[in-house]
Amino acid sequence: MDKEFGGYFTSLDRDGSVYDYTKYMWMQWRIVYMFSELHLSEYSRPGWLDIAERGFDFLYKHGRDETGHYYFALNRKGEPSIAAYNIFSDCFAAMGSAALYKATGTDRYRRAAEDAMNGYLARIDNPKAQWEKSLAGRQRFLSLGHYMMLANLGVIMDECLDADRYRSDLDSAISIVLDRFWNPELGLMFENVLPNGGFDLESCEGRMLNPGHVLEAMWFILNYFDRNGGDPHNLIKVAKIIKAALKTGWDTEHGGLFYFMDAQNKPHLELQWDMKLWWPQCEALIACLYAFKMTGDREFYDWFVKFNEWTWNHFRDPEFGEWYGYLNRQGAPTHSLKGGKWKTFFHLPRCLLMSVRLMQDIKNALTTTEFGEI
Amino acid sequence: MDKEFGGYFTSLDRDGSVYDYTKYMWMQWRIVYMFSELHLSEYSRPGWLDIAERGFDFLYKHGRDETGHYYFALNRKGEPSIAAYNIFSDCFAAMGSAALYKATGTDRYRRAAEDAMNGYLARIDNPKAQWEKSLAGRQRFLSLGHYMMLANLGVIMDECLDADRYRSDLDSAISIVLDRFWNPELGLMFENVLPNGGFDLESCEGRMLNPGHVLEAMWFILNYFDRNGGDPHNLIKVAKIIKAALKTGWDTEHGGLFYFMDAQNKPHLELQWDMKLWWPQCEALIACLYAFKMTGDREFYDWFVKFNEWTWNHFRDPEFGEWYGYLNRQGAPTHSLKGGKWKTFFHLPRCLLMSVRLMQDIKNALTTTEFGEI
Repeated sequence: MDKEFGGYFTSLDRDGSVYDYTKYMWMQWRIVYMFSELHLSEYSRPGWLDIAERGFDFLYKHGRDETGHYYFALNRKGEPSIAAYNIFSDCFAAMGSAALYKATGTDRYRRAAEDAMNGYLARIDNPKAQWEKSLAGRQRFLSLGHYMMLANLGVIMDECLDADRYRSDLDSAISIVLDRFWNPELGLMFENVLPNGGFDLESCEGRMLNPGHVLEAMWFILNYFDRNGGDPHNLIKVAKIIKAALKTGWDTEHGGLFYFMDAQNKPHLELQWDMKLWWPQCEALIACLYAFKMTGDREFYDWFVKFNEWTWNHFRDPEFGEWYGYLNRQGAPTHSLKGGKWKTFFHLPRCLLMSVRLMQDIKNALTTTEFGEI
Repeated sequence: MDKEFGGYFTSLDRDGSVYDYTKYMWMQWRIVYMFSELHLSEYSRPGWLDIAERGFDFLYKHGRDETGHYYFALNRKGEPSIAAYNIFSDCFAAMGSAALYKATGTDRYRRAAEDAMNGYLARIDNPKAQWEKSLAGRQRFLSLGHYMMLANLGVIMDECLDADRYRSDLDSAISIVLDRFWNPELGLMFENVLPNGGFDLESCEGRMLNPGHVLEAMWFILNYFDRNGGDPHNLIKVAKIIKAALKTGWDTEHGGLFYFMDAQNKPHLELQWDMKLWWPQCEALIACLYAFKMTGDREFYDWFVKFNEWTWNHFRDPEFGEWYGYLNRQGAPTHSLKGGKWKTFFHLPRCLLMSVRLMQDIKNALTTTEFGEI
């Protein structure tokens, strides 16, 4: 916490020292979300709700531009630093505010959540606004990230605000993800698909795979099915997609899930495609456990064990705690940071909290004999 | 060459096969530049001038938006694909057109070069135009890249157009690079410096080092001194900056020059900071030879030998020719591509052509005894 100006420091080096003071909105709101959720959890500690509420005050006061959208970043004092060019700032503001409403019942958090959610929905068709660089000659794509987050937000709104007004957006996002992004012939879920259906195998963008995104999207959908029931055919499809993403994304040579891939193993535009980031592994852990819980298919349990071993052997910092964020393909850290522009107290604690709960559910559902086996 | 629509394919896999059809303007104009220069060189071959001229026709016809700035990318057919958000498209258009004028004396190439150069100069204070995301709360910086390219463009305009009208821009760019970006206490040349002087060691942006940029900027300046004479104090300073960049940037563990670094060894924002890219090594090779030629200091020769060995041992593809573009820190290729969004027929051939010429100059300048020693 920045006790002088408000908000949080997220650029934290290995030992927790601050190496940059920029307040990136994605990171700030994810901390509000996580401390609200942890306050509500069986692990709650005094002071955690206060951490979330003080963050909200700072972000709500300083965070929005004149159109109501959240900036991408503030400076340490809370002055606007990077414009609201990215709709996921609104997305994480909605998540954080909704969780804070669930934790407190305070109406201003609910209103802030709804405003941010409506801001997100209003921009989903033109997310980059005036900062859009694409022109008519560029192939347009639907992006898995947008629909994945819409599905996640819908579930969170449903759960935190007890509001079913986003249900149709949610149902439509899930249908789009399962029907449009999955290519059954190739057995791959793509990151970018053609707006009118189909896949573009002629371009880097069209061939791009993001296995961490796929696994995250799939557990969001399983979470929805778990809460609301779902067509058994869809459950079978989700299980198949998860297996495909695990198999495609796992590095058989060095272990861990690749960051980005190309559907035809052609060169990837991103230099860091082969790195092992903490978050895709976190999403894989949750997806494996959720799929095991929902299907009972032992293959998911085996994948969980594999990821569990690899991640704790490679990401954990036994001296200063927390996980490293970035490993090279071989599994050695390339950065000493524990938090930064894109990593904060979010994916790992969410993964741990979800995993503990899923393991409890699995344990409760199994007979003593079954449990003994695993 | 795309014989159907014009322009060039630059997304070429290891064996030369095309893996994406986007025509990125930086890459397209760099090919025009390189084939014009090679046509003028002692290695000229029939057809090379035609390659440059056919490229010019396509790019001049399709490449500019309604304000006269060059787009960032066209699609295969030449339709605008990515907007003119990046001023270096104008910069490379000026370079390519100027070299083509030098090769042909055709006036339309000269006019195109001057228009693009003026477009570049007009935007240097607000290079991102409407795509700028920075707001008042963000620390502004002067960027080495902009002044480095201005110095390079000034020399090229001077040489190709025989025009001294850019001489004052050039002189001012060289002064700014040498006076403002070099920190004598720390012995480092920074990538971003405060507009009113000084360095920001509190932020990732302020601490950023880009040793490849430094070496490129320094040989541009040596090239200028070589052609026009220069203050001997400045020559001594440039030599010191080159030694500092080589020493700071060289990876003593695995060899090669790092891509990005942090002045205080704090975490770098970029995931790929520790990768070994082809172009910083190319710039290092030229800088070492140029500094050896201009100063006679044997230390530069030793550095050249070191880079020469490391690069040819790691980047060369003995089976299909050309160099790989991207190696991991350990020196193994992470991408099979020979060309892409950022790599094309430019840094490597420029480096080879410059190196051969510099070695000839060095040989001619040395007495027989001196030459025998090296």
